[in-house]
Amino acid sequence: MAVEIPVVRLAQGVASEASDVVTEEVPLTVYLNREEVATLLCSPGHWEELAVGFLASQGLLREPDELVRVEVEERRGLAWVESRVSRPLAQRGMFKRFLTSGCGSGIAYYAADDAAQLRPLAGERRVDASAVLDLMHRFQRLSESFRATGGVHSAALASAEEILVFREDIGRHNAVDKISGHCLLTRLETGDKLLLTTGRLSSEIVTKAARLGVPLLVSRAAATNLAVTYAATLGVTLIGFARGQRLTVYSHTARISM
Amino acid sequence: MAVEIPVVRLAQGVASEASDVVTEEVPLTVYLNREEVATLLCSPGHWEELAVGFLASQGLLREPDELVRVEVEERRGLAWVESRVSRPLAQRGMFKRFLTSGCGSGIAYYAADDAAQLRPLAGERRVDASAVLDLMHRFQRLSESFRATGGVHSAALASAEEILVFREDIGRHNAVDKISGHCLLTRLETGDKLLLTTGRLSSEIVTKAARLGVPLLVSRAAATNLAVTYAATLGVTLIGFARGQRLTVYSHTARISM
Repeated sequence: MAVEIPVVRLAQGVASEASDVVTEEVPLTVYLNREEVATLLCSPGHWEELAVGFLASQGLLREPDELVRVEVEERRGLAWVESRVSRPLAQRGMFKRFLTSGCGSGIAYYAADDAAQLRPLAGERRVDASAVLDLMHRFQRLSESFRATGGVHSAALASAEEILVFREDIGRHNAVDKISGHCLLTRLETGDKLLLTTGRLSSEIVTKAARLGVPLLVSRAAATNLAVTYAATLGVTLIGFARGQRLTVYSHTARISM
Repeated sequence: MAVEIPVVRLAQGVASEASDVVTEEVPLTVYLNREEVATLLCSPGHWEELAVGFLASQGLLREPDELVRVEVEERRGLAWVESRVSRPLAQRGMFKRFLTSGCGSGIAYYAADDAAQLRPLAGERRVDASAVLDLMHRFQRLSESFRATGGVHSAALASAEEILVFREDIGRHNAVDKISGHCLLTRLETGDKLLLTTGRLSSEIVTKAARLGVPLLVSRAAATNLAVTYAATLGVTLIGFARGQRLTVYSHTARISM
């Protein structure tokens, strides 16, 4: 995950040649049924999960049963995913937007072609706020111990009691996609879990959580207004600024006991 | 840039209903010659610049003279850009990768179809390390004063003496694209300038700087190994961890006097 390179460093007024450890950034090109979908700039490691999770987050892979095979050529940075179901790739980009025909009243946004068909998450199983803070504390400690070089994001899947899967990547989206891929590959039940992230809570991360079926999304960072709107619509309990003994719940507060 | 929403907040063991200021995230759909290119999730403001800068960063707009007109419909979040030159849109995604035929020796990566044709930046005009640190100090102060809500990135164009253009956005890419758009729209000379960013130094940000023709790219955050490789190839002086009295120069160190 890290490589050493020569640099020139200035410190306390003195310039010196030194070596520095920087985090690795590598392109991974993802193919679905032999068709190229995208090239991701990511951290090495857990590439089966990343490829599968990325395709799932694009709505191109939806059920574990659709998956036939995943093959990764590490040296060339290629991932080949084979699925039983063929869905057309979106024309361009990863975010497709539809304007409703009425031009004043309603504009509808979708994070992907089929996000509009996502069922809002139901279930009101409650989690103690103190359990959330305890998980975030452990998550933060894990993130720091893994992070010698700076600039890496982490994501985790947790039960109310413990962190079950921990992944990191230079991209906050990739870290979450690795978690999604892990759940899909191992058929992990997500409806009673929490998704933790070190990144900002933007609309795209909320959509990923909804797609993954995780009802609670937690970060120590801030949320955007669009993330809050999406979370309210998609049935996600969105929690930001979770640090120390504080947290802010933006939506579906009934799931949190204070 | 910020809106107030109702939240439930836990602090010192006490839960209370409160209102919180969150940063705005809005979709902007960019059209080039009436063809839809992409929808960006961004902060409101400076959308002409963002649309133009985004297209420039994709290699779809290269010279100020190509630009005929930019029109923004703020209420619907649409930007219409008209150019004299038609270039084919990349098939998929914004990052196209080519594998060289040789399978052991060489793999070439390009951040876009035409990045391979980018001329490395020449020019060895030197800047004092102390001037860089002074600029970063002022940049950081500006960023903090603008940032009531957290989670916003900033970018700036600076001469060795002062900050000339300052922009912010929820996306670190967007903040830099707004700067690029500004330079293109105002025909600002960039060959003797510095680009400052609050974001991580990844390969894509280096490519944006090279495309913009800015020879010095500075951040208080870390660089990735691929960013360093790109910077070395494209003639960009890459500086990370610029904070207090310290900085690290990763490439083309001759432009910095210590």
